[in-house]
Amino acid sequence: MEYEAFFRRQIDRLRADGNYRVFAEIERQAGNFPRAVLHNPPTGHPGENGAPREITIWCSNDYLGMGQHPDVLAAMHDAIDRLGAGAGGTRNISGTSIAHVELERELASLHGKESALLFASGYMSNWATLGTIAARLPGCIVLSDAGNHASMIEGIRHSRAERHIFAHNDPADLDRILATLPADAPKIVAFESVYSMDGDIAPIAAICDVADKHGAMTYLDEVHAVGLYGPQGAGIAARDGVADRLTIVEGTLGKGFGVVGGYIAASDALCDFVRSFASGYIFSTALPPAIAAGACASIRAVRAADGLRARHADRVRAVRAALDQAGVPHQLNPSHIVPVIVGDPIKTRLLTDRLLTRHGIYVQPINYPTVPRGTERLRLTPSPLHSDQDIAQLATALGAEWAELNLAESA
Amino acid sequence: MEYEAFFRRQIDRLRADGNYRVFAEIERQAGNFPRAVLHNPPTGHPGENGAPREITIWCSNDYLGMGQHPDVLAAMHDAIDRLGAGAGGTRNISGTSIAHVELERELASLHGKESALLFASGYMSNWATLGTIAARLPGCIVLSDAGNHASMIEGIRHSRAERHIFAHNDPADLDRILATLPADAPKIVAFESVYSMDGDIAPIAAICDVADKHGAMTYLDEVHAVGLYGPQGAGIAARDGVADRLTIVEGTLGKGFGVVGGYIAASDALCDFVRSFASGYIFSTALPPAIAAGACASIRAVRAADGLRARHADRVRAVRAALDQAGVPHQLNPSHIVPVIVGDPIKTRLLTDRLLTRHGIYVQPINYPTVPRGTERLRLTPSPLHSDQDIAQLATALGAEWAELNLAESA
Ligand SMILES: Cc1ncc(COP(=O)(O)O)c(C=O)c1O
Ligand SMILES: Cc1ncc(COP(=O)(O)O)c(C=O)c1O
Repeated sequence: MEYEAFFRRQIDRLRADGNYRVFAEIERQAGNFPRAVLHNPPTGHPGENGAPREITIWCSNDYLGMGQHPDVLAAMHDAIDRLGAGAGGTRNISGTSIAHVELERELASLHGKESALLFASGYMSNWATLGTIAARLPGCIVLSDAGNHASMIEGIRHSRAERHIFAHNDPADLDRILATLPADAPKIVAFESVYSMDGDIAPIAAICDVADKHGAMTYLDEVHAVGLYGPQGAGIAARDGVADRLTIVEGTLGKGFGVVGGYIAASDALCDFVRSFASGYIFSTALPPAIAAGACASIRAVRAADGLRARHADRVRAVRAALDQAGVPHQLNPSHIVPVIVGDPIKTRLLTDRLLTRHGIYVQPINYPTVPRGTERLRLTPSPLHSDQDIAQLATALGAEWAELNLAESA
Repeated sequence: MEYEAFFRRQIDRLRADGNYRVFAEIERQAGNFPRAVLHNPPTGHPGENGAPREITIWCSNDYLGMGQHPDVLAAMHDAIDRLGAGAGGTRNISGTSIAHVELERELASLHGKESALLFASGYMSNWATLGTIAARLPGCIVLSDAGNHASMIEGIRHSRAERHIFAHNDPADLDRILATLPADAPKIVAFESVYSMDGDIAPIAAICDVADKHGAMTYLDEVHAVGLYGPQGAGIAARDGVADRLTIVEGTLGKGFGVVGGYIAASDALCDFVRSFASGYIFSTALPPAIAAGACASIRAVRAADGLRARHADRVRAVRAALDQAGVPHQLNPSHIVPVIVGDPIKTRLLTDRLLTRHGIYVQPINYPTVPRGTERLRLTPSPLHSDQDIAQLATALGAEWAELNLAESA
């Protein structure tokens, strides 16, 4: 077996399909977001980079700019000075800091749940929680929304539980499937609030109604909603007044809260169960205390910042209006995510390369496997820190390049 | 289905077996390691905590005390000031910082490989790399050491590849199994260098001989070795002069390097393959630039610090000698890990509670599932920062409590 040749062939195939990914090497500048310096701008010649240049980021998931908030940076500095760099162990073996304990309390409070558990990432929280509960509840059946994120899918797959996929955001289909399943089997309905690539939002109350009717637990990924929606930024379930109906709320500290890490919030017993049995929680070094402290400071600042959320919503409206004026078709949805579908990976890359090279606008092309083939896109994420001028510049540039590429609206 | 009752019953069973885990809530103090403050000392009454007290940590995996190294803290402070808190996205979508690029170069250089890939944790690097390669190499067969860590086991399980377990550290058994398998099937031999709970070390060269004979790739977890062994702390494979024989070296930034994160180092093509196809790499927010910068500073300091490694080895010898003198049986092995086997979870907890309450010595009891039932233990990890006096105090305290509990040597 020629291993190297196999790996190289797979990469060559990605290149041929236009799906090979080149990571933009970015120097973020605390205090200057959404401005940054790009260290490897494309030149049009593969493998050759231009000189570093200033860019405006239009695709960050630091949705609120909390990654440069003074409270967050101060809390991190302070924790490093007091507590040092790493946690020094897994949570059980010397790795639980007072900063972790405080953060888990803050998260439980944010979501109005008894407890919360911190993980290395949102990916890990989804994978480990679903993987553990679905595997250990005897006979458990998982009902999974067709649009669910890779981390949930992998967790469910890992559990080897029986799994049924219901049509995306479709409580009627969920109801139909649940009705065919044994009434006394344990069940989990797993779904998201804001879907990250299309920006559509789940009918949470209706899904909870169906789950309740059939005695199923509910698991809601609020990764793209926490910090952004609802009173105190507790998410869409909180906005809709149904947070108490969810068995488990899952979120990230790496997007709206601008740091890194993932978590679940749920009952004491459920959190204690996952804490005690999830391999991905038990057998891994805890996050550094400074990360926990920074995330905690971020949550506190965000909870108090209704103005920030209002400004965020305003910027999203402004971007949509400017794109309309510039003749750039964008997918409508009720969230802060503005998808511009191109529908082909090579054209998408051409468009984003031109935005970058000609206008200093950085939007990463989104291709397979992050979105289905044929729906390749730009995914714009306006933040409260994008100015009117930034928005005007984006719309003008995108309008011009869109027209030049003569792109038809698709999807 | 009464979900809450189910979770509670499972927790009650853990309690009855003596396997319920209470996390020590620790305030590490930068500059004062191995001293720290424990915020929830046990009182003997469940659910009731004593007043915070000073402790000496004897079970940290911050093996070299790099978690308080001035270079590491300075690099983190500097990166926070310049680059902010979080990465702001997945590696592909605006989340690659110049700090990540620099760290990956440093890791490749440390291990003498073409490339390296950074993950959120060592757990994730094992799970995602083995899970991806074993699943995507058609017909791949995995040969897994019987003592492998949970993260490797879960990654292999996730891949659904055919798997064979060979006897722990036994190249002859590996050879025997490989001889029964189709010669042209792709194969990976997955093992560790230092096994964390027994502290024994793999015969890497002999395992590579067998793997080469049968045309298998080799995957070595050096999580408990990087920073500590070999020239520049590159690990046991480097110490043994066989690093170039391994297809993939995996390590952590959370133990010897004192921060957090995981990685693999391998060929350009292999790293590019994992980068392009591993769900756990693609679909998760990148580590904060400040973590990457801190880890990079730590590696640089550790590479130059042969004196630190010598001092570490000296402290391990001193602990072993002091335990011998105090009549405390400990498991012999060629590494820095000093296991004291008790063989019962309730007795182990009693012993560690007494060490804490009477002597201010913190050693977390290690129980199932971290070690097999019946081999419950103390796992002592001397660091270069434990003084002669710390060691004398540990040996005296452990000798007295061991005698009082009248513990027989087991396992
Ligand atoms: C819906 C969803 N869930 C979970 C995750 C993983 O969260 P994290 O980035 O914290 O690993 C992501 C994206 O990264 C996501 O889009
Ligand atoms: C052998 C081994 N591999 C991998 C890991 C996971 O590394 P990390 O703590 O960085 O997740 C651990 C322990 O935590 C380990 O003991």
